Amino acid sequence: MDEFALIRRLNRPRSDRGAAPAASGVKMGIGDDAAVLRPSSGRELVVSCDTMVETVHFKPETMRSDDIGYKAMAAALSDLAAMGAEPRWALVALTVPPQSWTADELRELYDGLYACADRYGVAVVGGDTTSSPAGLTVTVTVIGEAADGRSLLRSAAEPGDAVFVTGPLGGSAAGLHALLARGERAGPIERLPEPLQPLVRAHRRPEPRFDAARLLAAAEPGVCGALNDVSDGLASEAREIAEASGVRIALDGASIPLADELSEYAASVGADPLEWALYGGEDFELVGTVRRDRAEELAAAFERAGRRIWFVGQVSAAAAEDGAAVTIVREPGGAEVPLAKNGYNHFA
Amino acid sequence: MDEFALIRRLNRPRSDRGAAPAASGVKMGIGDDAAVLRPSSGRELVVSCDTMVETVHFKPETMRSDDIGYKAMAAALSDLAAMGAEPRWALVALTVPPQSWTADELRELYDGLYACADRYGVAVVGGDTTSSPAGLTVTVTVIGEAADGRSLLRSAAEPGDAVFVTGPLGGSAAGLHALLARGERAGPIERLPEPLQPLVRAHRRPEPRFDAARLLAAAEPGVCGALNDVSDGLASEAREIAEASGVRIALDGASIPLADELSEYAASVGADPLEWALYGGEDFELVGTVRRDRAEELAAAFERAGRRIWFVGQVSAAAAEDGAAVTIVREPGGAEVPLAKNGYNHFA
Repeated sequence: MDEFALIRRLNRPRSDRGAAPAASGVKMGIGDDAAVLRPSSGRELVVSCDTMVETVHFKPETMRSDDIGYKAMAAALSDLAAMGAEPRWALVALTVPPQSWTADELRELYDGLYACADRYGVAVVGGDTTSSPAGLTVTVTVIGEAADGRSLLRSAAEPGDAVFVTGPLGGSAAGLHALLARGERAGPIERLPEPLQPLVRAHRRPEPRFDAARLLAAAEPGVCGALNDVSDGLASEAREIAEASGVRIALDGASIPLADELSEYAASVGADPLEWALYGGEDFELVGTVRRDRAEELAAAFERAGRRIWFVGQVSAAAAEDGAAVTIVREPGGAEVPLAKNGYNHFA
Repeated sequence: MDEFALIRRLNRPRSDRGAAPAASGVKMGIGDDAAVLRPSSGRELVVSCDTMVETVHFKPETMRSDDIGYKAMAAALSDLAAMGAEPRWALVALTVPPQSWTADELRELYDGLYACADRYGVAVVGGDTTSSPAGLTVTVTVIGEAADGRSLLRSAAEPGDAVFVTGPLGGSAAGLHALLARGERAGPIERLPEPLQPLVRAHRRPEPRFDAARLLAAAEPGVCGALNDVSDGLASEAREIAEASGVRIALDGASIPLADELSEYAASVGADPLEWALYGGEDFELVGTVRRDRAEELAAAFERAGRRIWFVGQVSAAAAEDGAAVTIVREPGGAEVPLAKNGYNHFA
């Protein structure tokens, strides 16, 4: 199969289906040198890209082909949610070792990509497909829009802010641990023991939290301070906010939400679930700050929408030169200790 | 070095330098979950991405580190030129096998990327950097803008149009041939025998033809028909235009411009320079069509700007079902024969 036939096979039925709606803003999608898009007037563009690499981010024991596509799209879109932006368009760059991937597997990968794109109203408008010597890589570039001046930056935390997260953390890392411990080729999630399913789903099928991002973006300007997604673990994300905002963040370990299944699985393997929440990453929940006197109002807005936020710490003025940017009290009554960064490091 | 330190090292001095100008439309560049950009009002977005893979697109014998970066950016930008769009922003996704690339080599690669971006007024606003098991890959996503409804699509050729190209073809393929024949680690272009320098430069340091694209975009609407860049060789690009436009293209081999150095080198190795022009690719000149009665006017506009176009064929009504979409008369007085597609196929 030649390159053009492959791209057609991967995209055509879907780009035919998806090409129509004028609301998508797509004047020319896949099939020319570049896509032509019509942005909304008076809005800012918000753009990001995210790469997943075989053996580094996934292998046959941890992800099925469709999961790889779904998660690549979800992880890229999560960066838009973390800015309070609405997702619109995506481009997909794929490098494939032809010896080790069949056309059917690539088709499944694209099924996953499009399932996630469709779910969040994203039009796939372009990409590039090339061979590679070893290891599939998929890079998804996403373009969203935000109201003028309303993007939620990580530099906007202020002393006095409360720190919140939008959901339980650590599930993705526990799911990965469980999959690696099983050591067999990844099968359907439904065939796993029931208590493992939510953890494995968190790892393989994460959801960008646009529902939460919309509630935050809808708040009065200035109510929500900084915002990040928890792609590298809470410790790393809190540090990024602290450093970008020039503040200090104190986390309260006992307030960090952990799923029951996480605690049970951690107990069964002698692990500390809080470590997974702090350093596991890939949960794609949002972590942010809110002005202290507006925190209850924000929590109420989430409740009205059938959602919830958890308050997990507070922001104070930056520490002295040698002070830690992020601290934690792990257990009620325990000591406040500096929190090491320790996220996943590709180049350690 | 950790990932953040590496990204800072690759980008910081440049993003500090480049962050300033408001004309760049960058409200938030590298350093948050996503970049925040301010598009021009009333213009369309034109977006594309392009991937280069070690061993597939380059190896130590053919490209230096800075060439890889320069060409990755140039190849991506060329897709915007081929739409008649103005380049504005770029994102760079890099996967690196840490064992085989040093931080200094990556720094050189980024020097090349930024040299090309700076040359064409493009702000690098984001990216992703991850490790990989084998083979560096670099994916550049580019975002440009075009006047509403003025993007130059490959589907716009009409029977009667003249086919033109904006410069000599085949040089890049000949340069690659020469580098592979030498078989030594690629050194500075200036140290090569003088007749080889323009060929090797065409391969390693291609330039997107925004100068020509601007002249085409400035022509009265409808004067310029279809447009492509010659990334996969003239045969393949002509076929894409013919298929997308539902027309037939007849090329005149004797009119296809070949550099003197190309003809000389081809003679010295017993190769046919026309084959390189038709099937070599990576020349990044533009190929397009113009209404027959406006062709001289367009050529004159190029001459006034100190540029030139070459007329290389004509467009006619689509052939019968079994007719070839693209034909060629290779030599004056020769027969008109179907032209095989035969561009580089990643999945043959």
